[in-house]
Amino acid sequence: MKVVTLGEMMMRLTPPGYSRFEQANTFDVNFGGAEANVAAALAIWGDETFFVSKVPSHEIGQAAVNSLRALGVETCFVLRGGERLGIYYAERGVDLRGGKVIYDRNKSAFSLSDANEYDWEKIFDRADWFHITGITPALGEKAQELAFMACKEAKNRNIKVSFDVNYRSKLWEMAEAKDVMEKLLCYTDVCIVNENQAHELFGVSGEKAIQEFAKKYCLNQVAFTYRRTKDARHNKIWGMLYLEGKVVKSREYDMEMTDRIGGGDAFSAGLIYALGHGYEAQKAIDFAEAASCLKHSVEGDVCLVSIDEIEKVCKGQGYGINR
Amino acid sequence: MKVVTLGEMMMRLTPPGYSRFEQANTFDVNFGGAEANVAAALAIWGDETFFVSKVPSHEIGQAAVNSLRALGVETCFVLRGGERLGIYYAERGVDLRGGKVIYDRNKSAFSLSDANEYDWEKIFDRADWFHITGITPALGEKAQELAFMACKEAKNRNIKVSFDVNYRSKLWEMAEAKDVMEKLLCYTDVCIVNENQAHELFGVSGEKAIQEFAKKYCLNQVAFTYRRTKDARHNKIWGMLYLEGKVVKSREYDMEMTDRIGGGDAFSAGLIYALGHGYEAQKAIDFAEAASCLKHSVEGDVCLVSIDEIEKVCKGQGYGINR
Amino acid sequence: MKVVTLGEMMMRLTPPGYSRFEQANTFDVNFGGAEANVAAALAIWGDETFFVSKVPSHEIGQAAVNSLRALGVETCFVLRGGERLGIYYAERGVDLRGGKVIYDRNKSAFSLSDANEYDWEKIFDRADWFHITGITPALGEKAQELAFMACKEAKNRNIKVSFDVNYRSKLWEMAEAKDVMEKLLCYTDVCIVNENQAHELFGVSGEKAIQEFAKKYCLNQVAFTYRRTKDARHNKIWGMLYLEGKVVKSREYDMEMTDRIGGGDAFSAGLIYALGHGYEAQKAIDFAEAASCLKHSVEGDVCLVSIDEIEKVCKGQGYGINR
Amino acid sequence: MKVVTLGEMMMRLTPPGYSRFEQANTFDVNFGGAEANVAAALAIWGDETFFVSKVPSHEIGQAAVNSLRALGVETCFVLRGGERLGIYYAERGVDLRGGKVIYDRNKSAFSLSDANEYDWEKIFDRADWFHITGITPALGEKAQELAFMACKEAKNRNIKVSFDVNYRSKLWEMAEAKDVMEKLLCYTDVCIVNENQAHELFGVSGEKAIQEFAKKYCLNQVAFTYRRTKDARHNKIWGMLYLEGKVVKSREYDMEMTDRIGGGDAFSAGLIYALGHGYEAQKAIDFAEAASCLKHSVEGDVCLVSIDEIEKVCKGQGYGINR
Amino acid sequence: MKVVTLGEMMMRLTPPGYSRFEQANTFDVNFGGAEANVAAALAIWGDETFFVSKVPSHEIGQAAVNSLRALGVETCFVLRGGERLGIYYAERGVDLRGGKVIYDRNKSAFSLSDANEYDWEKIFDRADWFHITGITPALGEKAQELAFMACKEAKNRNIKVSFDVNYRSKLWEMAEAKDVMEKLLCYTDVCIVNENQAHELFGVSGEKAIQEFAKKYCLNQVAFTYRRTKDARHNKIWGMLYLEGKVVKSREYDMEMTDRIGGGDAFSAGLIYALGHGYEAQKAIDFAEAASCLKHSVEGDVCLVSIDEIEKVCKGQGYGINR
Amino acid sequence: MKVVTLGEMMMRLTPPGYSRFEQANTFDVNFGGAEANVAAALAIWGDETFFVSKVPSHEIGQAAVNSLRALGVETCFVLRGGERLGIYYAERGVDLRGGKVIYDRNKSAFSLSDANEYDWEKIFDRADWFHITGITPALGEKAQELAFMACKEAKNRNIKVSFDVNYRSKLWEMAEAKDVMEKLLCYTDVCIVNENQAHELFGVSGEKAIQEFAKKYCLNQVAFTYRRTKDARHNKIWGMLYLEGKVVKSREYDMEMTDRIGGGDAFSAGLIYALGHGYEAQKAIDFAEAASCLKHSVEGDVCLVSIDEIEKVCKGQGYGINR
Repeated sequence: MKVVTLGEMMMRLTPPGYSRFEQANTFDVNFGGAEANVAAALAIWGDETFFVSKVPSHEIGQAAVNSLRALGVETCFVLRGGERLGIYYAERGVDLRGGKVIYDRNKSAFSLSDANEYDWEKIFDRADWFHITGITPALGEKAQELAFMACKEAKNRNIKVSFDVNYRSKLWEMAEAKDVMEKLLCYTDVCIVNENQAHELFGVSGEKAIQEFAKKYCLNQVAFTYRRTKDARHNKIWGMLYLEGKVVKSREYDMEMTDRIGGGDAFSAGLIYALGHGYEAQKAIDFAEAASCLKHSVEGDVCLVSIDEIEKVCKGQGYGINR
Repeated sequence: MKVVTLGEMMMRLTPPGYSRFEQANTFDVNFGGAEANVAAALAIWGDETFFVSKVPSHEIGQAAVNSLRALGVETCFVLRGGERLGIYYAERGVDLRGGKVIYDRNKSAFSLSDANEYDWEKIFDRADWFHITGITPALGEKAQELAFMACKEAKNRNIKVSFDVNYRSKLWEMAEAKDVMEKLLCYTDVCIVNENQAHELFGVSGEKAIQEFAKKYCLNQVAFTYRRTKDARHNKIWGMLYLEGKVVKSREYDMEMTDRIGGGDAFSAGLIYALGHGYEAQKAIDFAEAASCLKHSVEGDVCLVSIDEIEKVCKGQGYGINR
Repeated sequence: MKVVTLGEMMMRLTPPGYSRFEQANTFDVNFGGAEANVAAALAIWGDETFFVSKVPSHEIGQAAVNSLRALGVETCFVLRGGERLGIYYAERGVDLRGGKVIYDRNKSAFSLSDANEYDWEKIFDRADWFHITGITPALGEKAQELAFMACKEAKNRNIKVSFDVNYRSKLWEMAEAKDVMEKLLCYTDVCIVNENQAHELFGVSGEKAIQEFAKKYCLNQVAFTYRRTKDARHNKIWGMLYLEGKVVKSREYDMEMTDRIGGGDAFSAGLIYALGHGYEAQKAIDFAEAASCLKHSVEGDVCLVSIDEIEKVCKGQGYGINR
Repeated sequence: MKVVTLGEMMMRLTPPGYSRFEQANTFDVNFGGAEANVAAALAIWGDETFFVSKVPSHEIGQAAVNSLRALGVETCFVLRGGERLGIYYAERGVDLRGGKVIYDRNKSAFSLSDANEYDWEKIFDRADWFHITGITPALGEKAQELAFMACKEAKNRNIKVSFDVNYRSKLWEMAEAKDVMEKLLCYTDVCIVNENQAHELFGVSGEKAIQEFAKKYCLNQVAFTYRRTKDARHNKIWGMLYLEGKVVKSREYDMEMTDRIGGGDAFSAGLIYALGHGYEAQKAIDFAEAASCLKHSVEGDVCLVSIDEIEKVCKGQGYGINR
Repeated sequence: MKVVTLGEMMMRLTPPGYSRFEQANTFDVNFGGAEANVAAALAIWGDETFFVSKVPSHEIGQAAVNSLRALGVETCFVLRGGERLGIYYAERGVDLRGGKVIYDRNKSAFSLSDANEYDWEKIFDRADWFHITGITPALGEKAQELAFMACKEAKNRNIKVSFDVNYRSKLWEMAEAKDVMEKLLCYTDVCIVNENQAHELFGVSGEKAIQEFAKKYCLNQVAFTYRRTKDARHNKIWGMLYLEGKVVKSREYDMEMTDRIGGGDAFSAGLIYALGHGYEAQKAIDFAEAASCLKHSVEGDVCLVSIDEIEKVCKGQGYGINR
Repeated sequence: MKVVTLGEMMMRLTPPGYSRFEQANTFDVNFGGAEANVAAALAIWGDETFFVSKVPSHEIGQAAVNSLRALGVETCFVLRGGERLGIYYAERGVDLRGGKVIYDRNKSAFSLSDANEYDWEKIFDRADWFHITGITPALGEKAQELAFMACKEAKNRNIKVSFDVNYRSKLWEMAEAKDVMEKLLCYTDVCIVNENQAHELFGVSGEKAIQEFAKKYCLNQVAFTYRRTKDARHNKIWGMLYLEGKVVKSREYDMEMTDRIGGGDAFSAGLIYALGHGYEAQKAIDFAEAASCLKHSVEGDVCLVSIDEIEKVCKGQGYGINR
């Protein structure tokens, strides 16, 4: 399967361990982005994946690209130019002290890139799947145009489009987001959304929320993700999948988390993998949720776990050491 | 509010992570002390705070001072001189292996400093609150004199005096401690004491212990702290406050702890802040206990959390990441 | 008590924290081996211990020796020569992501050493106890010969022999293992075996498994160890001891683990110490299991805890900080 | 002496050791800025110093402030607000591989701050000296206004003004810089300029360049700094001072450098200290150059060396260890 | 230009800083190999490069592959299988204490791989250049066959073959090496050899050594590398190039070295780049030697420097910081 | 050869790299002491060595002992007890910024230990050599008694006594030191002294200083050490040996130093080894000085280099890497 994802990569700066921002004398550096993370996971699992973006033509931009190449993602469609790579500072939380994110991503190379800079013909050549998230249209006018253009180009070629709603309240207002998102849903084959955002943005809730949502936006494939926050390191998650009228639910995972960021992207990647490779509904939601759960045990944005490990977790195995 | 605290600062040497002393090739370095920690928290929260102490006039002494200045504590009343800065080695515990402290604090500059070296007139000028703990009188004859002198000077100026009992069994005998503490209680407006020490030192226990204690020592403002040790990283804590005859109890916190040291000082700071800023009883104990709880999630001695974070915990919010 | 243990030392390479192998830019380095770990624990507890092995005559081999000497183990019987020190890569697991071990130990100096290279006369001079595990005979023909030779030499001198079954599925087949193990049991006074291996290798299971095992192999002293894996960092363990017809069971420990490797060796060391120093059955199994439990809280292979700490855990004390 | 400096603080992100940007998994974090560095050095040497700036009201902004407070700089005039703290990535060079700086400082809180946000009355109350550099006017229109306003306000109060030319070719064109700089020189009492920039910007060169420059801009106090780059870690530096018609030259220092950034600021601080405390010309240039030389041996932007250490270097002492 | 290189990748384990092996509690991890290093440099410089090898199908093998992919090397021809990745321990030297290497590379997946496992048709499809070194034939019989097979397959397709003699005395005897090397020279278009090895292996020395060597082995393109060891961190290097009868010499570089390993491979890569892109002789040797010099300033095996940086060094520029 | 050394062990706390004390968030930890360092070097070189001292009976004391045991030093004569292990803070210097030492060693367990606590009979049983330095008598009255007692007990048994003058100006006055030292010289067979201290304490200087010194104190074996400080990382050292009337001089070493501490102790150890193993004069001083030179390239107090490495340096070899 050839998968294309498009979005922004950022540099994440994290104080070591559970240090607070003011205590940090070093920052851990890693690179990620919702759509890049999806590409990385799929590359690790063996799919041919292309990431489309724009980064500045300096060494920090190159480092972002290198981090994806290392995992097998094709980066020939990452444009170079613009002024800066967006960054964010992320402090790990622990116990009742929540994690913290400070964004410094305005005016990034990607967010100011023009839809016409990208060679859609080559990008979507032979592609089977295109994945985008609600972060891109939140990055400003140019990025919004880009998001729509990409979706149109994909649809024109009959490429399957998955859309992860991923509403970020720090980036835009809910009203605008809702408006834009609903237009994007028109291009969407597979929609992934957190239950709370489904409620706040699209007004669906309760036991039948997923069916309601699917019906409202005429979607055949919808996934809902659920998260309950016990404390900063302990969350419970599960997922539901609406597939051609049928609804299935994954196992619930009570997690001790190492790194929460990218947990949702791992779910998206897992779902794309499962649906793209023809898994039936229950197996698909199980695979996606286990991938998401395992991601939470891995440092960094990327779901650096193998299919074998995911399948063991689906079966309830693999927590010990094999010697 | 202008707050003055007086006490010893020490250098804490901690093996990285959960290493044992014998495994350490590096020590994490930080500086603290019960009263310095209280000053630091209050400075972070915006009060004008002065720390009074004595450190050697070398770079290690300066580093201790710098650590407080960074957080906004005024250090103009920290004398320079003497031979050494007290140190202690602290090993983190985990699971059923308890934490460990090795003191090497004898003959420190502060413990040998003379009460007359300090300029009480300037120190207490405009001050609203003076805080001291039971550690200072435990440091020897000179320090005991200093503790009494400071309390007297504060009382003479009608400055509110808070006293955290903080009995340290490695520093002195219980009998002597009791004797000295009781004398110090005569100068005390607000007394903070752990329930076990209240029992062992002052003979009060049971459901009405706090009332009994307040009555026995004619105190209007008394806080009792409670701690149950499940294992080295998991404790349950709560607090009670006796305020003008009324007794209130905080929520109980089941904590996964990052750094236990300074947890009691955060409670003291929280209580001083709450009472000094006129919080009513329930809000005061809630604020103090939430501050204490959050401190346990922060590396180092200091309660490096904002008022906003404390208030969120009081309301049961804030454990997730806001993006 | 003078104790001799014989076996292979390896270098363990561990990614820092919970990093995955592919993320590691540094490896933590430590040295260990089932039998070396037993020697180290006994040396820490004050017994005279000799470790017998062979390492290459280069600096990495020397570093392995130094790590034991630091703890007080006598290493004069560690031969020098051969080509390489065996290594293994060990990734820590967390939550539902299990730990991982990659062996690279073939052709190690020890595994190819000849039984006749060792000076048994000197090695066993004045010795009270000899300890060996099922790893040595799994390392190939030469090592198997060595294991038998050592056991014979010990038995000829009426030295007590303890044998930790320690079946490693990555090293040999179960059928061969069973065959060899049974022959080694003929030389064994004290046998330690995990309940699962007892079942799979020796066909005993159920409530009376330990008695059955003891009877089947004519043993007077048998210890069974039990482990339930909740997730990669949380295991429950307990032990049983069959001593001269009597069976006793230790407390169950629900552990938050720091480093699982060496947990079984700590049990063996604890049992040897307890039996060698004449503890009665219940006290012996309690000591061994508490040592094992505490080992899981310590980084590295070695049970770096004091007798005092073990005894406190036996009594259910010591999880707090004493100041 | 009370000194005021005004300028931008930035976060510096540095790969550890001599790693390249693309190799960095962590960045060393420190905070600095030409004018902040001058304030810090003077505070370390005992002068009362105030730093004036604006930082965002988040934890990263606070960390920048804390770094100055730790050293004794008063930060009550650092405004809070705006969007971001400017950052720059700095790679250390070694041998023939030069150091590298990537700026990401556009739209910083300081560069967009308004001259009227600052309370000049309070800022310059009792001040003896005001220091500014050519970086501030290079940051854009608003910052240029701010620079002029500050100089005017200082001059109106008869406060001595020192100006470090510090032309940064990555920030603005030479023609504009020259124009603006010349206007700023009208407010300047003490001008510090690198010989090359004196040549390129102001057209003076050769043996009499400093006299020529002083005459051209009617200055009584001018310092020229000289640097010869042998390789990335080895530079030779010296300085000249024109004081009331007299010219003196410092010793030349052949340095093995640890951290080059801030070397010029240490010179400025040294000169301000020397002139402000009434040193005669030769002693002044010697003090300033020794301070600059020693700064190159210290990690971070700040000249963290004592007056005693500077004076020893002036005398050619102090390179060994005193035990 | 499409370049193919074939050889072994190893894991290098390095004590941090200038620690000795026995002092190391962590090892820095990086992956390299003479031919992989050449591929990496060429990929960084923009050529299409393929690395051909075999690594075990576990995570450590994957990490080696990832390190090359990150830099843009195509790894689709890296086979998976075999038992182990070769490792070596490398201690940095300093002053008169030389660096140290301990090999543990026997029985590696690559050294035991069969020439027929590789798909030469695909590997050499469209290739312009093939690079090999004298390390591969030193790894044993299988690897020797592989080296010859690869050379033949390349020659059959009229692909240019470069050969870096790279004699390793720890791997094989000089007599055998000479014999094999001479056979390999028959397939060689461009030969790179250190002057000492040219003397010891091929008996040429003195001023006309390079001409003599070229003549003796009928080569049109030969490069000689020279190194003088002042101490462990300071070497002088230069190079000579014989090109179609003409001999040119590079500048001499007196280096302060950060990491010596890979310095020769950077020379090879530089030469391949220069000759492959049609540089004339003097420019070619200058480029190659500057690349080699700069590599010594970079940690790790790979010449992580840009063409722009190399060209600046050729011109004697670029040692300062541009701000 | 069986060698006994007696003295104090201290913990050294060192900021990482070239950080200043005030910048340190971690300290590197290592243990050493002039006489312990000598014992360690001799153990590494294969002599049977016993270190005699006293350390507190806590984990920090144990860690000091472990550091010696790791290297093969026998520590059965290290007493346990007393209050504290002496510590010192050591900052590395670089360029013209000198290294710095802050002592905090008063009241250490060793300095207050009683001469009668030691079992001289066992300590000196079979001993060939006893080594002591001028630090011990500088530690106070008790330690002075101990030094004399040890020398007497050694002399009574005809054990060779070497004495390293090692005057520490921070510990005592020169007048007292001279007085005590001269008395200790009566027990001395081999005296090692720095030329400056020889001048300041004993009044010998100039070309014939060593002969003069030997004559004045009736010594047959005297070594003088010389050091010229170019800057904090570059020193030149050499040595002279007076042996039975003959004077020989070592090569001069122009060093780039990694860690200066212990450089003199390495010389002492080298001299003891050389004389104890019957080297002739020139070979002895060469060995001692090369050992000293190499120590300066090794982190930590101990001369962790092999005899083979020392001999190579004597021959002017070994600065490169052998592969």
